[in-house]
Amino acid sequence: MQNFEFYNPTKIVFGNDTIARLTDLVPSDARVLILYGGASARKNGTLDEVRTALGTRYIQEFGGIEPNPTYETLMRAVEQIRTEKLDYLLAVGGGSVIDGTKFVAAAVNFPGDPWEILLTYGQNIDSALPFGTVLTLPATGSEMNSGSVITRRETHTKLAFKSSHVFPQFSILDPSKTYTLPQQQIANGVVDAFVHIVEQYLTYPVGGMAQDRFAEGLLQTLIEIGPLAIAKPTDADVRANLMWVATLALNGLIGAGVPQDWSTHMIGHELTAAYGIDHARTLAIVLPAMLNEQRKQKHDKLLQYGQRVWGINSGSDEQRITATIEATRDFFERMGVPTHMSAYNLDNDAIDLVINQLKAHGMTQLGEQSDVTPEVSRRILIAAL
Amino acid sequence: MQNFEFYNPTKIVFGNDTIARLTDLVPSDARVLILYGGASARKNGTLDEVRTALGTRYIQEFGGIEPNPTYETLMRAVEQIRTEKLDYLLAVGGGSVIDGTKFVAAAVNFPGDPWEILLTYGQNIDSALPFGTVLTLPATGSEMNSGSVITRRETHTKLAFKSSHVFPQFSILDPSKTYTLPQQQIANGVVDAFVHIVEQYLTYPVGGMAQDRFAEGLLQTLIEIGPLAIAKPTDADVRANLMWVATLALNGLIGAGVPQDWSTHMIGHELTAAYGIDHARTLAIVLPAMLNEQRKQKHDKLLQYGQRVWGINSGSDEQRITATIEATRDFFERMGVPTHMSAYNLDNDAIDLVINQLKAHGMTQLGEQSDVTPEVSRRILIAAL
Repeated sequence: MQNFEFYNPTKIVFGNDTIARLTDLVPSDARVLILYGGASARKNGTLDEVRTALGTRYIQEFGGIEPNPTYETLMRAVEQIRTEKLDYLLAVGGGSVIDGTKFVAAAVNFPGDPWEILLTYGQNIDSALPFGTVLTLPATGSEMNSGSVITRRETHTKLAFKSSHVFPQFSILDPSKTYTLPQQQIANGVVDAFVHIVEQYLTYPVGGMAQDRFAEGLLQTLIEIGPLAIAKPTDADVRANLMWVATLALNGLIGAGVPQDWSTHMIGHELTAAYGIDHARTLAIVLPAMLNEQRKQKHDKLLQYGQRVWGINSGSDEQRITATIEATRDFFERMGVPTHMSAYNLDNDAIDLVINQLKAHGMTQLGEQSDVTPEVSRRILIAAL
Repeated sequence: MQNFEFYNPTKIVFGNDTIARLTDLVPSDARVLILYGGASARKNGTLDEVRTALGTRYIQEFGGIEPNPTYETLMRAVEQIRTEKLDYLLAVGGGSVIDGTKFVAAAVNFPGDPWEILLTYGQNIDSALPFGTVLTLPATGSEMNSGSVITRRETHTKLAFKSSHVFPQFSILDPSKTYTLPQQQIANGVVDAFVHIVEQYLTYPVGGMAQDRFAEGLLQTLIEIGPLAIAKPTDADVRANLMWVATLALNGLIGAGVPQDWSTHMIGHELTAAYGIDHARTLAIVLPAMLNEQRKQKHDKLLQYGQRVWGINSGSDEQRITATIEATRDFFERMGVPTHMSAYNLDNDAIDLVINQLKAHGMTQLGEQSDVTPEVSRRILIAAL
């Protein structure tokens, strides 16, 4: 096992009908900005519930945070906070709203241009406004980690940052709030969580036995409940497990002490930035092709993954690895998430563009062994056409 | 899944040669009390390493905390802190030293008799001194939770308390510090961690899929590495996994959102308080007999445990459950930890005494269904003779 540090102070409040707990979780004298995305938070009644729970606190709202939250939009929230002297943020939504809120929290008191936060991967953050979240969409894990991904619309740049200052103070996870989500968002959430786990698990063995077992357990659970989450949208147990698994997939625990990959995410980010394809859907395109391209480097873990998660025990090593990658692809397809670029009418031109953007963003040595060069990324994308 | 809250702000610093990190983790102006147990912390060089890492900070020491830390001893540490105006605690040792430090941290500023902390299960704690830990013995999980068990020597009373004020600020987990531990302490640690997991897992199904998979993964890991930890005391990977698994076994994660049992612990505590048997060794006595006594109530989870953890798939339900309980008993015995009271020359008189003590301490409705009455406890102990 590798040396590691693990720290995660976010308080999770989990269960149906837990939004009322806001009354204890938010300081009673807070001047609150509620940040949210589209109209759904208003329509499904969540915003009203939140307002009621906050009682007599001073509240303002900031809506319209996009699925891939942009610097341009978020800087308007920063202005509002500065002007109105607000001091507490409450994100109501999914990963995009929470990621955006993290950026806003760090940007408000940031000296200079907050875009620097992204350019330094968050290294230069000294403080942030306190904030909590009310999660309405299980997928990204942002509700229990200190990472955030922000897009600059102007330049089609999608960059990440991380800082211990932007852990949510609390996150309310109410599975019943997911019942009305569109099927595609649930399918995306399952794939997103799945790939988060794979990025931290499918590398090379370092003897992290608990980490491996945890990752495998989360993958098995997603394989079991993914189709059910589509078929039975109001099954309380299925939605509760989906919500908790998606959080555990990226709260730092399964990645502590083991190598991590993240090449699929970096390539996928460029597909989203250039063509607006949903984040999770870009991961489904890239991952199977990436696993096949890296099958030699990931040989041992691919066999372990196939055996423990998919029960693939027979055949030669190479046959088992092929079957394992195909089982993964098939799972995404069964979730209704395509695994080829052709599903979005993208061709070789798109590959050229993505490779150029990877180079422009310094993404030239991706993966756990830093061996996913632009040439390797190109082969992956050609295989994913 | 049941509604739950999860909160755990302890920072884990994991790996060989991490004690030097104390220089960043302890405030530079802290007036530190180092708390430890026996002579081993001094002999194996850990105390020297700690002192070196703390540099020029003002340091005092308090040694002699017992394996089952007593109120009487700990109150002397409280006096020392008050007199010497110390403001930061550093526990160097295993679960007993850390449990004791939690009590001391809460007692220093407690108005009135600190024994009240135990009598109210920690409900009346408003603050505590900050503290960190350097773990030298993997077993109890105290390094990453907010619970503590304290014994009153005078009355043979062993009681627990819990408070969010007594989470360690950080815990340094250096697996190489375990290489020189006596074999019996390692065996005890494996059994202790194993039973911690079982107490949170082997109850009745509530659809906590990730919790179940995590618990099963930790149990599988302990079964794999337990014998190796005895056979190869300096195997770095084995000791690292043992240390991390023991922490994960009781940091609140696998128990969040599921019912918990703890009857084995409560009965075991009385055996320790009355006869001084090592904590883990009392658990090995009680657990197999308890599982057999409660086989009807725990039917579904016993089958799941047998299948997923032990690979027991054939025979009738009752046969599989019997085989599963025997596999558990056999594992403890293979670790060199006896599963019968006769190994300690205890007989029916001991049972009478334990039952009376359980009644005296209000432990009359134990277990996840509160159905482990003194009569049931008696049957369990008779079966464990």
